[in-house]
This record gives sequence, C-alpha cells and structure tokens, in this order.
Amino acid sequence: MDRRTILQHSGMVGILAASVAPAVHAQATIRWRLASSYPRLLDILFGTGEVFAKAVHDMSGGKFQISVHPGGELMPASAVLDRVRSGAVEMGHATPADYYDKDPTFCLGSAIPYGMNARQMNAWLYEGNGSKLMRAFYANYGIVNFPGGNTGAQMGGWFHKEIKVLQDLKDLKFGLSPLAGRVLAPHGVVAHSVLDSQILQRFEQGALDAVQWGGPYDDAKLGLPKVAPLYYYPGWAGSTETEFLINDKAWQALSAEHKSIVEYASTHAKMTMTARYDAQNLSALKTIVGGGRKLMPFLPEIRRAVFKSARELYAGLSESNPEWRTVYTDYVKFQADQILWFRFAEGAFDGFFQQQKF
Amino acid sequence: MDRRTILQHSGMVGILAASVAPAVHAQATIRWRLASSYPRLLDILFGTGEVFAKAVHDMSGGKFQISVHPGGELMPASAVLDRVRSGAVEMGHATPADYYDKDPTFCLGSAIPYGMNARQMNAWLYEGNGSKLMRAFYANYGIVNFPGGNTGAQMGGWFHKEIKVLQDLKDLKFGLSPLAGRVLAPHGVVAHSVLDSQILQRFEQGALDAVQWGGPYDDAKLGLPKVAPLYYYPGWAGSTETEFLINDKAWQALSAEHKSIVEYASTHAKMTMTARYDAQNLSALKTIVGGGRKLMPFLPEIRRAVFKSARELYAGLSESNPEWRTVYTDYVKFQADQILWFRFAEGAFDGFFQQQKF
Repeated sequence: MDRRTILQHSGMVGILAASVAPAVHAQATIRWRLASSYPRLLDILFGTGEVFAKAVHDMSGGKFQISVHPGGELMPASAVLDRVRSGAVEMGHATPADYYDKDPTFCLGSAIPYGMNARQMNAWLYEGNGSKLMRAFYANYGIVNFPGGNTGAQMGGWFHKEIKVLQDLKDLKFGLSPLAGRVLAPHGVVAHSVLDSQILQRFEQGALDAVQWGGPYDDAKLGLPKVAPLYYYPGWAGSTETEFLINDKAWQALSAEHKSIVEYASTHAKMTMTARYDAQNLSALKTIVGGGRKLMPFLPEIRRAVFKSARELYAGLSESNPEWRTVYTDYVKFQADQILWFRFAEGAFDGFFQQQKF
Repeated sequence: MDRRTILQHSGMVGILAASVAPAVHAQATIRWRLASSYPRLLDILFGTGEVFAKAVHDMSGGKFQISVHPGGELMPASAVLDRVRSGAVEMGHATPADYYDKDPTFCLGSAIPYGMNARQMNAWLYEGNGSKLMRAFYANYGIVNFPGGNTGAQMGGWFHKEIKVLQDLKDLKFGLSPLAGRVLAPHGVVAHSVLDSQILQRFEQGALDAVQWGGPYDDAKLGLPKVAPLYYYPGWAGSTETEFLINDKAWQALSAEHKSIVEYASTHAKMTMTARYDAQNLSALKTIVGGGRKLMPFLPEIRRAVFKSARELYAGLSESNPEWRTVYTDYVKFQADQILWFRFAEGAFDGFFQQQKF
C-alpha cells in the first residue's frame, strides 16, 4: 500500500491535501528528453546515452526519467547544441569537436589532433583544470556539460592510394573532422567535413580520395571497408571525448540529489563507452582484415609534419581566440606533463607488448 | 516545513502513526562502515573510499551514509576481507592482490605481473567477463565486489645496486607483492612480502636490497626515496586494481535504488583514483629526480625473462587451482586481444610521443 492509498483509506485526504502538497510535489517524476547526436546504427555512441539514462532512472528509484532520442528524431544532429541552449530539450549528447565552426574551443574538451589520450583526458577533466575551464566556456552557451564518454584513439581513415611521402597529401580530397582539416590544409589536403551527411555517399561515388571517421567498430557499421582498400593508423587525435550537454535552467531546477545522480551517472556512461570500444574494436578489425583490407601505418615523416602544423595552428588560435588561449594554455601544459610521466611506468609497460609476442 | 513537522502541526500524529510507519521506515538513514586497507598517509588510496562514500551520500540525499575508516582503525589492514566476510563491517576497500596466500585468484581482479593495463582492465571488467567471473569467485566468500580504483602501472621499485644482467637478481633480498615474489623466485630473488608492516623499516636498516611499492606519489609519501638511490621502471604489473568488498547480507538488505547508487558511485571512485595518480605522479617524480635519485629502466633481457617465468607460473596455477584456471583462461584470452588492438590506434598514437619532443 503506497502513501497515496494509505491517505485515501484514512479518509483524511481532503484535510491533509493543502499541507502535504509540497512533499508530494518533491516526489513527482521528472521527465527529460536527451537528444543524441548519434544514429542507432552507431550503437556504442548512441547507447552511451541509454547507459546514462538507465543509471539516472535506477539511482533515482524511477523518479528521474530521461528518454533518449537518436540523431535526427527530434532535430538534426547538428542542431543539438543550439536546441539544448534554447531549452527545446533539457539535454543532449554530442561530440563537441563537431562545433569547430562555432568556436574551436569546443574541440579542446573533445578532440584535437595530437591531443591527449583517453586516460590523460580523464586526469585533466577530473583532477586537473579541464572540467572547470570547459564549464566556464560552456556557461557562455547557457549549458552545463559533463564528460560523456571517450572513443579512445581512432584509426587514421580509409584511403584508395598509399601515402608514402608527405607530398602524397597534396590535393588529396579527404573527408575528416573540421579541425583535422585545418591541421592538414598546409600540406595541400583538400578537406571535406565529415559532418556533411552526404560524405559517405560521395566517398562511395569516388568524389573523395579518403575518409577518416572512427575506429574499426564504427567504420564497419558505416560500411567504410567496402569503399576503400587501405586502412591507415593511428588517428590524428589521441582520443575523442563526447559530452553530455544540459540546459542550465533545467539543471538549476534539479534537486541537489538529482544533480549528483546526473554527475555520477555520466562518469559511469563515460567509462562504459571506452570499455565497449576497447572490447569490440579488435573483433571488427579482424573482420576487416579478413575481408582483404590492408592495415597501413602513417610513416614517421608524415606524422612529424602533421604534428608540427597542428602546433602552429594551435599557436595561431591562441593569438586570435581568447577562449581557446585560456583553455589551451592549461591543456598543453597538462599534456606535456602527462606525456613525460607516461614515458616511464605506463608507456614503458605498454611498449614491452608492442614488440613482445604474447 | 518537513513532513514530520506538518503532521505534528496537523495534530494527527497519533491517528496516522500506524499507517504511515512503513513509509517512514523506508526513508530511514542507512549507516555503513567502510574499513579501508590504506592509511590516511596514502591519501589517494584512502581518499578513494571517501570519494565513494560522498557519492553515495549525495546521490541518496543523505539517506545512505558510509563512514570511512583508515587501515588499522577498526582492524589490521590484512583483516579487511575476513571482517567483511563475517559481517563485522558492511564493506571494505582493499587491494585483493594482497590476498594471494588465501587464493591467487584474487590477483586476477587486481594485479598480476605482465597483466592488463588500467584501460584494458576496465574493458575486461565492465564489458568482458571480468566482473561476472570475479563476482562468482567472491561469492565463495559471501562478498559482493565492485571495482574500486586503479593505480595505473607502477614503478619497478627502489634498488641499492644496478640490475645489469639477469644474474644480478640472484640472492637479491627484494620486498614486493606476494605474487611478484613467486614470479621472480626462479631467477634467484629472495622475496620478502611488502605486506609485512616492518618492511620499510627493514629496508632502511639495510636488511633488504630492494623494495617495490607503488608509483612516485605513494613512494614519496612512504619515504622510499630517502632509502635507496636507484628508481627502476616500469613495475611488473600493467596496473593495480583495488576493490570495494561488500558483505553479501548487507548488500541484499539494500533497496534496488541504493544498490544502483553503490554500483555507480564505485565507477566514479574508480575513475577518480586513476585520474588522481596520473595528475600527481609526475610532480612527485620530478621532486624525486631533483633530489638526486636516478631513474633506471629494466633492460629488455630481464623483462623478457620475467615475462616468461610469469607465464610459466600462471600455467602451473591453471593446473593446480580450478578457480584460477576459470578466471585466467578468460583473462589471458581477453588480454591477448587487447594487446593486439592496442598495437594499432592506441599504441601507435602513444608511441609517437615516446620519441617526439613535445
């Protein structure tokens, strides 16, 4: 017998109604909508929103319910940031690196070529200044953000022809993220945004020479192995972080308890995304290689040149964009320390297994 | 005005008491004690229990409170498993690799030489069979376990003399974890358990030639840089996972809501521990090096020999211990896949920064 039934049976509902109302109101179910930027097909990306919503549901005893909508259902994926900002939906799940054209600073909390790997990003976000700085940036958009899952390092993309020397990048029609396109531009790459909904179709039709999308699991889902024979590695970024974006007014209306539930549910969702990719990518890669596709490493000369042009672009952004400068200054200092630390225990351990037959 | 006050003011407390009682009971505060295995001095290890307890407190609106007690306060650190099992405390926080003498299988959910790195462990625990298998093992002890934080790869320990060739390990009086001691025994190491509370004192007094404890942050707190001049890397294990151990009866008494809160709070605590170590270790390492201690890599010949003896020991355990065999068979298959996958995107990305000046 629940409390409502007890009160009805006690015959005192009318008498108590006025004074009990606030307590009943506090127990009312909260219903939010989460606009994902990802189609159901990309089930790890989309599913991370579902993991988050389930955690919130379960921890709140069902009193906080979030419906998760795939990209395109409520709005085009590209509109998620704006619609969260306007309050059309309470929250979204997105890859903020996609918002480069609004402000490159979004990329710093998400993915930049030669940026931090997934674990270093965790350290920066949770125990460095990362979350604090990105929160201050998102406040300009009336949005409260939480880390929403990291894909880990991705692959370097699908190519029709080998990239043997730096000059092979010249005039290459390459579909990739907006920031990576800017980083590769000095080497003559003709960048096409991978956010263009027609990009895969155009790649299939031969209008592009190469496309970088994600890792083996997602690339296989998107059918990329059918289009080109060469699969390069590694990707340009050390990791790609997604974010949960919450409308500030919706956030402020939550109880302290529900705010905590959102925060910790996001950590679990984040952990789950990386774990799922790590658990699934090899099997997808084996199928890809079994199907005759060839794995190709980017050569050191090319990687060093792209690293150099990345650093130059970032230095330029630091001059032209104060928001970028504020966040990047902290980011790159933290990254330098992480890289140095990872040369010892972590990198030396992992490095052993790069050579050792297991 | 809270509900109790409202009812008192309405003058109907006595009338309603009987029927309202069940609802009030469901809201009663739950109080647990968490026996940490770590002293306050090791503030990242000990503090992870506090992060967990705060998350549980905040998400439950203060209705589920867990007091966190440092190692030695309620019981010796070594007694945590037994006292959680007996129900003397509801839960503990421990490094299960320390329970090698009870059953080496504990090490598989915690740390084994040449085992998985922190991120691979996450994939195995959250998305492979890791948690399921370790849960089944812990059920023998009447304990429900949750991952409780990973230190990442540790350093290889403090040495008075250089280890130039494999033969330098012979007759080396080496304080280290019980399983690592077994792995190194075939090379002539005279292993002393690092769990011995007198181990640091004996190292200071010159009774030991070397001690491996943790990474730079913890080793500095323990005063190890004062004892020996050479700091080797990397540690033998790819990561050291800690666990939250919960008495099964206490667990079963929780509501579904509180069970979820415990589960997701543990994920956040786990993420926090690794992030804290990654954010703090370099600074500690710089101080150590600045104080004149010398960083020394274990040479490939030695690492390959220890890897070989580790695999031989694990094969032997698989013959003699069915619990080990069940978990290890899955662990090592998963690890092999992870190592192969990490050679491409992740390892190739990180490897670039092993050489590249940043």
